[in-house]
Amino acid sequence: MRQAGRSLPEYRKVRSGTAMLDACLRPDLATEITLQPVRRYDIDAAIFFSDIVVPLKAIGVDVEIKPGVGPVLGTPIRSRDDLGVLRRPEPADLAPIDEAVRGVVSELDPQVPLIGFAGAPFTVASYLVEGGPSRQHPRTKSLMRSDPDLWHDLMARVAAISAEFLLTQVRAGARAVQLFDSWAGALSAADYATYVQPHSATVLQALAGSDVPRIHFGVGTSEILPLMAAAGADVIGVDWRLPLDEASSRVPGIPLQGNLDPALLFADWPVIAAEIDRILLEGSAAPGHIFNLGHGVLPDTDPDVLARVADAVHSHT
Amino acid sequence: MRQAGRSLPEYRKVRSGTAMLDACLRPDLATEITLQPVRRYDIDAAIFFSDIVVPLKAIGVDVEIKPGVGPVLGTPIRSRDDLGVLRRPEPADLAPIDEAVRGVVSELDPQVPLIGFAGAPFTVASYLVEGGPSRQHPRTKSLMRSDPDLWHDLMARVAAISAEFLLTQVRAGARAVQLFDSWAGALSAADYATYVQPHSATVLQALAGSDVPRIHFGVGTSEILPLMAAAGADVIGVDWRLPLDEASSRVPGIPLQGNLDPALLFADWPVIAAEIDRILLEGSAAPGHIFNLGHGVLPDTDPDVLARVADAVHSHT
Repeated sequence: MRQAGRSLPEYRKVRSGTAMLDACLRPDLATEITLQPVRRYDIDAAIFFSDIVVPLKAIGVDVEIKPGVGPVLGTPIRSRDDLGVLRRPEPADLAPIDEAVRGVVSELDPQVPLIGFAGAPFTVASYLVEGGPSRQHPRTKSLMRSDPDLWHDLMARVAAISAEFLLTQVRAGARAVQLFDSWAGALSAADYATYVQPHSATVLQALAGSDVPRIHFGVGTSEILPLMAAAGADVIGVDWRLPLDEASSRVPGIPLQGNLDPALLFADWPVIAAEIDRILLEGSAAPGHIFNLGHGVLPDTDPDVLARVADAVHSHT
Repeated sequence: MRQAGRSLPEYRKVRSGTAMLDACLRPDLATEITLQPVRRYDIDAAIFFSDIVVPLKAIGVDVEIKPGVGPVLGTPIRSRDDLGVLRRPEPADLAPIDEAVRGVVSELDPQVPLIGFAGAPFTVASYLVEGGPSRQHPRTKSLMRSDPDLWHDLMARVAAISAEFLLTQVRAGARAVQLFDSWAGALSAADYATYVQPHSATVLQALAGSDVPRIHFGVGTSEILPLMAAAGADVIGVDWRLPLDEASSRVPGIPLQGNLDPALLFADWPVIAAEIDRILLEGSAAPGHIFNLGHGVLPDTDPDVLARVADAVHSHT
């Protein structure tokens, strides 16, 4: 349950007075926040507390997360001259990540693996090019099509950064990774295949020798699930728009993750319980199913409902 | 090209100092703004300048459009007691709409039909229940599932309002209608079929005797196109995510509208020209194709690019 921490009072308390990216780069805080949902919920894995722009901040990119807005760049990246800041991270840059992950792993029950976290190149590139969050990605898509050489160079740099970010987490003890391409669903399948998939593949291939399962996640991706799988994923995340049995027919042989709609956590419990039953039944059509939400936890979600969801899922198994 | 006016300097000038909903309900302004893109571009139809919450404002619902935010309700609708404000519009409520449409039609070249405009029940209901714009629609979806009786009563009222809003425009001279369900793509096909389609069908069926083509539009709707067609549409709008030949295979026999990505209007001209060629070619697979953007014009769009698009499309025909 990604961002489960965001709805927790203990998270708000520990984050109080600390900017988001500072919290991500302070090992003690990142360790503590990663562990909070594990302490509260009976869940089978932890996911590393971070943000998709953390490795950018770590290499010195002028980026901050504005509360209520999201990641904002001091200088958007729109020309070849802007690419220089996107250098490959050195071990020293990611030392806080290494330390935080080691802190998490040392405190986790060995039965509970830690999942590493990184943003996929397209989603990260959209923030870089737009300069902040965007629903329509006009500058990103226009750069991609108008200057494919610059686009591919940009994406290759972002891919190298995401790969190093994940490898750092795996070397420090993460036992699976999840690559988040939150905006990939904004693209047609043709554009995804040409301009995005090769770079997501670079990230996933960089992990191929690490022997950790690679989860590839996006939202609104029903048309590109096969392309996301072919990029080198071992597990495909599915939001709530597509039933898991239907999703499995589109990516046969691939285990799935999902797909409870986080918006439904505000419904009455019998509604949620019925959804869990349905999702577990449909998920059994896949060769493996990691029960999860179809997207991040909404901030106002009642933590007790999340606890009840975890218990209900376990009562089935 | 919906919202084409939004990017025009003459639109900003005439709207200056007038709130959005006041402009929609002032017949002289609504007429003028509807005509502005027709004067500037060589387009084959006009679309009525309005907003999906205009009929709500017209019947006295406490709603305004906050600049940079969107429609905001004074009191969200979340219980049976709240439904009373959603009464069926009387002719007097919609007199400004009648007058504005008549004004448009009297000034339009008879070769250029006016398309009437209304929000579909789900999208309108989301604003009513959330109290404002929402990306995840948590209260809407939870109400829908937790209290289906209340949901269906709410949707029936909104459907009656949207139908009356469109009928008013048709009686005043609109020669086609477009029903906008911008958020329908946030739903699974199963939820759309159960909780939304019957009410969109109510709106579209109310127009069945009017002998005007009914365009049904949404975003991210690749999984629900057949359901949107079955609701009683004569034309289906398709955003940029799905090529029109593929879309046509999902709704055979139905003319399509679309599907240039408005984000690509910021790309270099050869990119846009190639997109137009591709879309016209793929659109020829459908039994009819209305060239259009796949979603609204972005506010920063260069009006001259829109003019060039219209000319390029016509140079093909």
